Amino acid sequence: MAVQALFFDVFGTLADWRNSIAREAKAILVPLGHDSIDWLAFADAWRGEYQPGMEEVRSGKIPFSKLDVLHRRNLERILPRFDLAGLSDDTLRNLNLAWHRLDTWPDVAPGLVRLKKRFRLAPVSNGNISLMVDLARRNGLPWDAILGAEIAGDYKPKPRVYLSAAAALDLAPDECMMVAAHSHDLKAAAAQGLRTAHIARVNEYGPSTGEPAPKFATDYAAQSLEDLATQLGV
Amino acid sequence: MAVQALFFDVFGTLADWRNSIAREAKAILVPLGHDSIDWLAFADAWRGEYQPGMEEVRSGKIPFSKLDVLHRRNLERILPRFDLAGLSDDTLRNLNLAWHRLDTWPDVAPGLVRLKKRFRLAPVSNGNISLMVDLARRNGLPWDAILGAEIAGDYKPKPRVYLSAAAALDLAPDECMMVAAHSHDLKAAAAQGLRTAHIARVNEYGPSTGEPAPKFATDYAAQSLEDLATQLGV
Repeated sequence: MAVQALFFDVFGTLADWRNSIAREAKAILVPLGHDSIDWLAFADAWRGEYQPGMEEVRSGKIPFSKLDVLHRRNLERILPRFDLAGLSDDTLRNLNLAWHRLDTWPDVAPGLVRLKKRFRLAPVSNGNISLMVDLARRNGLPWDAILGAEIAGDYKPKPRVYLSAAAALDLAPDECMMVAAHSHDLKAAAAQGLRTAHIARVNEYGPSTGEPAPKFATDYAAQSLEDLATQLGV
Repeated sequence: MAVQALFFDVFGTLADWRNSIAREAKAILVPLGHDSIDWLAFADAWRGEYQPGMEEVRSGKIPFSKLDVLHRRNLERILPRFDLAGLSDDTLRNLNLAWHRLDTWPDVAPGLVRLKKRFRLAPVSNGNISLMVDLARRNGLPWDAILGAEIAGDYKPKPRVYLSAAAALDLAPDECMMVAAHSHDLKAAAAQGLRTAHIARVNEYGPSTGEPAPKFATDYAAQSLEDLATQLGV
């Protein structure tokens, strides 16, 4: 079967969450007098709570909640480590929405525009619908639909997240290709029959921290979405 | 609260289903020798099964199925009325996908492009996600997300369809405006607290068959999406 749709991981693969969160947190908290925080360390700490937070949902310990809710809880968990006490609810809400204001890597919007000519495009992210909408509007991402965790009611790498995305587009799993910078995401998609494309994002957690290449045999391995578009002939 | 998102009914309000279905059915069936059918009557008959088909889901008689599934069943119900027997499964599948190949009214794409500058835009239709994606790609509709029946797991005018769309965007109902050519749809949205905008589509079922104006006091009443954009100042 020919690939009809491309599904995208977002945090890390498309969006530079680390520098964006550091920038947003600094812009909100420095005016409140918090001026001696290592903002990249703050971003890393917040992101560090990401997998444990979702694991509570995946394991069935808590019911599905959209990622904004988990992000807020994760934020409150890390505040003491940065001596951040007494922030107002408005400040916490604004800070939590920093995830809606991420910048994407420079190749993303032009790459998606090229890929859209031939493929249906959707984020299949653990981020919620409103977060995906805000990132798309901010960065000019031409999605055909927003699929992923909120549609599935569970978090990647649970099989149903990949399978519900394919089903929403009336496609068989092998007509869909998961595009991600993380081999564990691609491996879980491949286990459900999806095709896979790895994107190298070597600076995701800081210089030379990301996977320069996939850790298993993916269908494609590219340096950027523009490179993937070229490899796919669009 | 200011309106943040516009939700759109699609069949009739945005898409000229009647002429499109007549055209598609004719193109598929005439080459098979079925050349004496009234194609507009065929479109009307198929559409005539629409509400009864969904009512079986709304009433709980059958579980939620996406509209493509109901369209296929409705199609099989009307075939005998047009002496259409013995069509292959491939032909029936292709015919059913005629609903994915509807044309929108001429004001729709340019109107949405204008409206997108200020508002988040989503179809809140009874059509399924894949159908909405295909209409958007065919007609250049710049949706931010595909919401509606398949997300809600039920059909309009059930309250949860409107409310799940608002919730997906993290908005209160009164921050959302339903846009439709049908007063019953708008009334159901208004009952859940949404704002309402009526679009006059007087030729939906043939010349002068549609509502020239809303049947109750909506927030806006417009002749087209371009007119609505002008009234909203974008």
